[in-house]
Amino acid sequence: MDSGTLKKIAETYGTPTYVYDEERIRENCGKIKREFEKRYPRTRLMYAYKANTNLAICRIVKNEGFGADVVSGGELHAALKTGVSRSGIIFTGNGKSAKELEFAIASGVMINVDSLDELDTLEKILKKKNKKVKISFRINPSVNPKTHPKISTGLRESKFGLHLQDDVALDAYARAKKNKNLEIAGVHMHIGSQITDITPFEEALEKLMQFVLRLKSELGIKLKFVDVGGGLGVRYKDEKVVSPGNFAGSITKIFDSYAKKIGYTPGLWVEPGRFIVADAGILLARAISIKKTPYRNFVNVDAGFNTLIRPAMYDAYHEVFVVGKSGGKRTYDVAGNLCESGDILAKDRKLPDVRRGDLVGIMNAGAYGFSMASAYNSQPLPAEVLVRKNRIELIRERGSYEDLYFKQKVPKDL
Amino acid sequence: MDSGTLKKIAETYGTPTYVYDEERIRENCGKIKREFEKRYPRTRLMYAYKANTNLAICRIVKNEGFGADVVSGGELHAALKTGVSRSGIIFTGNGKSAKELEFAIASGVMINVDSLDELDTLEKILKKKNKKVKISFRINPSVNPKTHPKISTGLRESKFGLHLQDDVALDAYARAKKNKNLEIAGVHMHIGSQITDITPFEEALEKLMQFVLRLKSELGIKLKFVDVGGGLGVRYKDEKVVSPGNFAGSITKIFDSYAKKIGYTPGLWVEPGRFIVADAGILLARAISIKKTPYRNFVNVDAGFNTLIRPAMYDAYHEVFVVGKSGGKRTYDVAGNLCESGDILAKDRKLPDVRRGDLVGIMNAGAYGFSMASAYNSQPLPAEVLVRKNRIELIRERGSYEDLYFKQKVPKDL
Repeated sequence: MDSGTLKKIAETYGTPTYVYDEERIRENCGKIKREFEKRYPRTRLMYAYKANTNLAICRIVKNEGFGADVVSGGELHAALKTGVSRSGIIFTGNGKSAKELEFAIASGVMINVDSLDELDTLEKILKKKNKKVKISFRINPSVNPKTHPKISTGLRESKFGLHLQDDVALDAYARAKKNKNLEIAGVHMHIGSQITDITPFEEALEKLMQFVLRLKSELGIKLKFVDVGGGLGVRYKDEKVVSPGNFAGSITKIFDSYAKKIGYTPGLWVEPGRFIVADAGILLARAISIKKTPYRNFVNVDAGFNTLIRPAMYDAYHEVFVVGKSGGKRTYDVAGNLCESGDILAKDRKLPDVRRGDLVGIMNAGAYGFSMASAYNSQPLPAEVLVRKNRIELIRERGSYEDLYFKQKVPKDL
Repeated sequence: MDSGTLKKIAETYGTPTYVYDEERIRENCGKIKREFEKRYPRTRLMYAYKANTNLAICRIVKNEGFGADVVSGGELHAALKTGVSRSGIIFTGNGKSAKELEFAIASGVMINVDSLDELDTLEKILKKKNKKVKISFRINPSVNPKTHPKISTGLRESKFGLHLQDDVALDAYARAKKNKNLEIAGVHMHIGSQITDITPFEEALEKLMQFVLRLKSELGIKLKFVDVGGGLGVRYKDEKVVSPGNFAGSITKIFDSYAKKIGYTPGLWVEPGRFIVADAGILLARAISIKKTPYRNFVNVDAGFNTLIRPAMYDAYHEVFVVGKSGGKRTYDVAGNLCESGDILAKDRKLPDVRRGDLVGIMNAGAYGFSMASAYNSQPLPAEVLVRKNRIELIRERGSYEDLYFKQKVPKDL
């Protein structure tokens, strides 16, 4: 996005504002879709809603032919509102409440069961309602994806999925097979987000396909789909990233190698989130003040970890630029406006001479940006803007001070 | 709070819900107020709004005679809405925007200036508007509070305050003294939150009082107040905590020791936040499912780090109990319902035999709980309930799925 556009957005809608590039989102969708479909025509792409759940974004991705990977009743609601067909939605999560399960049953979407206890709750609801649903089970492949521990979901100690060990997962399928209210449709794994090394992914997928083989040979179960989750990484700094082509090549090669042994061709479901939206989004903030101290130089901006929590939460690196300026003259810390010393958006960055009032862009902020935002320090939520071919559209109005009191009630005698 | 009350709250208002105890808030207010006032009558207590900004809570604290320490336009708005008098509000922060400064000027509250660049902005606005404000400067005392690095605000590398070194702070006062639009009223420091060792605090305060002495002797400036910030810790697990009595004793002793040298008696401002509300709040959640794996046992609850971020963000420990059950039979991880493996609210806890449907209470959640909450994973915001002498009152209604689309606009052609 060019400086002119960004300046215009800041003038019109203020800062901080998330700015998304529609074209880039569509390109990312196309890139991953093509790489899979040319290798394995029975692929279905499911967008991971948690990355960015703004309805305009969800509509774009849906229009590119994506289904929805949802992890809560709220995300399921958003996928339905977006217009994703019921058959294109899979509901994952380790803590689905009875209410959420009922919502999923009523909506007729795929329920990805995470534990035996959840299976039990689900069976009870279905019996009571005399309903039938399609299910898959999430498997814990017990591998180390070598990504940030907070997003390493496939470790054996993780809270997610059923273990292959001791036939926990196999027994769950055997049990589900006996229940006429359940239609076994698939199997699922997700080893973690922002994977930059394909080896643990391949290791997990091998385990999963071995399991698919056992389901067929020992229980006679043929699956409609094998969902390999997401995790395709994005280059934030200088990480080695797995390209969509290598990602697709690696997965489909393993799929193909099992095709004969399994004796049927299951659908392949993939759940990209970060890859679709991360590099299509910029967090646009304004430099409020410049502070030179004997120890460090700070650019204080009008966004904080309430706006973008990734640097504070995951020590994440986001590239920073000063709109309309180039070069790298001085070393700055880009400090957020929250009253916490951990509220530093970017540390030790060579930037051009930054002046009060300059616009600062924080790159690769399209995924896990707004979706994790809060009103901490009573900072209203940022605006969201979509840059389209010929125009700029506001897709979420900025929060106001009054919004902070939303749904509050003060007892009369206080 | 007894089991009966908590069960009734869960039945009436659902889960997850923040439950606050009015009496406890009032007791905490009284405790710290008494300890200071008996030692130093000219003390003024300023509640740190960021800890919990629910208006009902703010009203209780205000009714106990507290002023407001605010760190944003939003918190300033909340303090004014609460009815705190203008003279009882101090506006701190490293990234106050011009708009926020204008709001503070119009409201006539104390502006706690954080940098020379901010002073410059402020002076320009005042000149243009031909207005006068009261100010203090925040000093960076360059000490190590030995608390969590993310909340160690007094380090010399911190983004906060003016350094004493090279007379940066002294020169700022000299400059402000010359400006007729500025009335120098005080000085401020805040070395960090959850301080459990008083020594670095005393070290910082000694530096601050030396500076107050220099302001008098070198610039002839007499201050209305010295604001020592907050930081009084709370026992989450087994930390050594500084009692309000020791905290007050230590501070007032240093104040008294400087009284003669300084030649006047400044007011003493203190900014407790966590201490007032932390132990008055419980996050009430429900066990959705119990999951026994070959490696760990999980209690999956219907809250996550979207509801309470402290464990995921600061590795914070919060005591957990099962409502109506006692003893510690098994070791569990209390897992949140978000799709991140880092979403564990409590690790390795000996709990009674937990069953699906049991209520789980997460203690000491009154501070930095709701105020940091988000709708991540499209989880609606939790409800907030106030337990009063004879009744239970809802002080914030639970969020809904529809709320997630608040202020969103979808372009017509999408």
